[in-house]
Amino acid sequence: MSVIYKKVALIGLGLIAGSIAHAIRRAGLAETISGYARSSETRDIAREIKLCDQVCDTAAQAVKDADLVILAVPVGAMAAVAKEIGPHLKAGATLSDVGSVKASVIKSVSPFVPETVHFIPAHPIAGSERSGPHSGFETLFDNRWCILVPVENTDETALANLRSFWEKLGSNVEVMDAQHHDLVLAVTSHAPHLIAYTMVGVADDLRRVTDKEVINFSAAGFRDFTRIAASDPTMWRDVFLNNKEATLEILGRFTEELFDLQRAIRRGDGDFLHDYFTRTRAIRRGIIEAGQDTDAPDFGRGLTKES
Amino acid sequence: MSVIYKKVALIGLGLIAGSIAHAIRRAGLAETISGYARSSETRDIAREIKLCDQVCDTAAQAVKDADLVILAVPVGAMAAVAKEIGPHLKAGATLSDVGSVKASVIKSVSPFVPETVHFIPAHPIAGSERSGPHSGFETLFDNRWCILVPVENTDETALANLRSFWEKLGSNVEVMDAQHHDLVLAVTSHAPHLIAYTMVGVADDLRRVTDKEVINFSAAGFRDFTRIAASDPTMWRDVFLNNKEATLEILGRFTEELFDLQRAIRRGDGDFLHDYFTRTRAIRRGIIEAGQDTDAPDFGRGLTKES
Repeated sequence: MSVIYKKVALIGLGLIAGSIAHAIRRAGLAETISGYARSSETRDIAREIKLCDQVCDTAAQAVKDADLVILAVPVGAMAAVAKEIGPHLKAGATLSDVGSVKASVIKSVSPFVPETVHFIPAHPIAGSERSGPHSGFETLFDNRWCILVPVENTDETALANLRSFWEKLGSNVEVMDAQHHDLVLAVTSHAPHLIAYTMVGVADDLRRVTDKEVINFSAAGFRDFTRIAASDPTMWRDVFLNNKEATLEILGRFTEELFDLQRAIRRGDGDFLHDYFTRTRAIRRGIIEAGQDTDAPDFGRGLTKES
Repeated sequence: MSVIYKKVALIGLGLIAGSIAHAIRRAGLAETISGYARSSETRDIAREIKLCDQVCDTAAQAVKDADLVILAVPVGAMAAVAKEIGPHLKAGATLSDVGSVKASVIKSVSPFVPETVHFIPAHPIAGSERSGPHSGFETLFDNRWCILVPVENTDETALANLRSFWEKLGSNVEVMDAQHHDLVLAVTSHAPHLIAYTMVGVADDLRRVTDKEVINFSAAGFRDFTRIAASDPTMWRDVFLNNKEATLEILGRFTEELFDLQRAIRRGDGDFLHDYFTRTRAIRRGIIEAGQDTDAPDFGRGLTKES
């Protein structure tokens, strides 16, 4: 046991909050975990599976006396939740979040944070296409990165505690500013998600290729896209609406580049294509060496084992 | 042991041919496996790891007396190989291939096939981003699909034997015509690969996001793209050059759709985005139900285990 916060309150009880609860218990980081979810069905499930020590019927009750409050709701719901809990936050508490965009969350939550509360936005880079109170697991953050995005004049001790908390949940921690965070994530996550959604939508629309074929012959490429495109619709709607500029910038860049490659195909410029594909291969090697993936040969589909 | 072909010759000794060799042995489908690769280094490795019973220094030697010859070289190399081996093929033998496009392979290989030989093109829908003689494994085709694309007047017995061979390698077998195959694969594999290559290229190009950040914060979306974009550059160059029309058609459709989604983001049309993402989620469910993937929550990254 190495308690950092006596009481942690989780607002929203989906994949991320659930995984935080499991990982808190694994490391003994809190004495009490309280939780709240908007849907009574989610609250009932959370009670049944004992996700938290207390599941409360209002967010205000859940945050009472909490030393750390984590907003784990879709980005578009952050402002309303912050407004509701603001007056009930304990003096000296830390308020954080797990939203995938940071500038807009800071803008929408800050007005509701009392002066006595330390607001330190955060973003754990971890997830799966699953959602809901059942979906969390204690190892979700292991060896993943968590980005802390402190606002102006952040208290050093509060920041150090939150860093330590995320490290003990299993993460590596990095600190950066909100604008930069939002651009980096537009490249590594937001644009790729939109592209995957688009490609799956195209396949779904095409009348000339029957559904059964698309499904049966979903080779590596498309199968991976469908996994990405199965992510939570509400979360991703909010991500795109709240990281509009950076996402559109990257998508514009993407379209330019795609047109270049399309032109090379049309012209039959094999050297251009080969050089391009050789260059992209190297970045993959870097990711494996950085320990952020394995080079298992089966794309993780789990149906086969290497001989 | 259930020998279908006494001698099988594998031309090209990469991931697919290597996996065929392992799977032939697992099921005892041949008495002898011969092999040939253009690179002497590959031939040396193949000899060292005993990938085949005989590794020959020419393709002509390898196909001598073979009952089944499988061309497992990049699509752009098929014609030259077919020309070389044509005169050396045994009367009554079956010639097949594993190319990812079919119309252009049929066009380029057919002129070199003797009248006494059964040419039956095939495409196993299986792979990984690995390549080379070391990369094969015996379970690669298990529960994957293999598409047979018979040309006009194909001998029924020869077709039945090749179907049985692929089923015993572990595959499900489907028969379709070349045009349809090339369109289906443009949707499920070729367009997604080009898109993944493009997105990884964009990330690599951007001076504003450092390599280290792209690598460390490669959340699910981008990480999956890099895996696809690490595929063999020569193979994929040839795929795009040889399935030009269908790939460009699907990419055109993709771009239209992407523009629709970009416009929805720009306008802040959350309902449009939410509806779209909800629709794409369903196709994923179909793929899992069809047994072509698992719903493991960790994206197969293998670093974590579900609790």
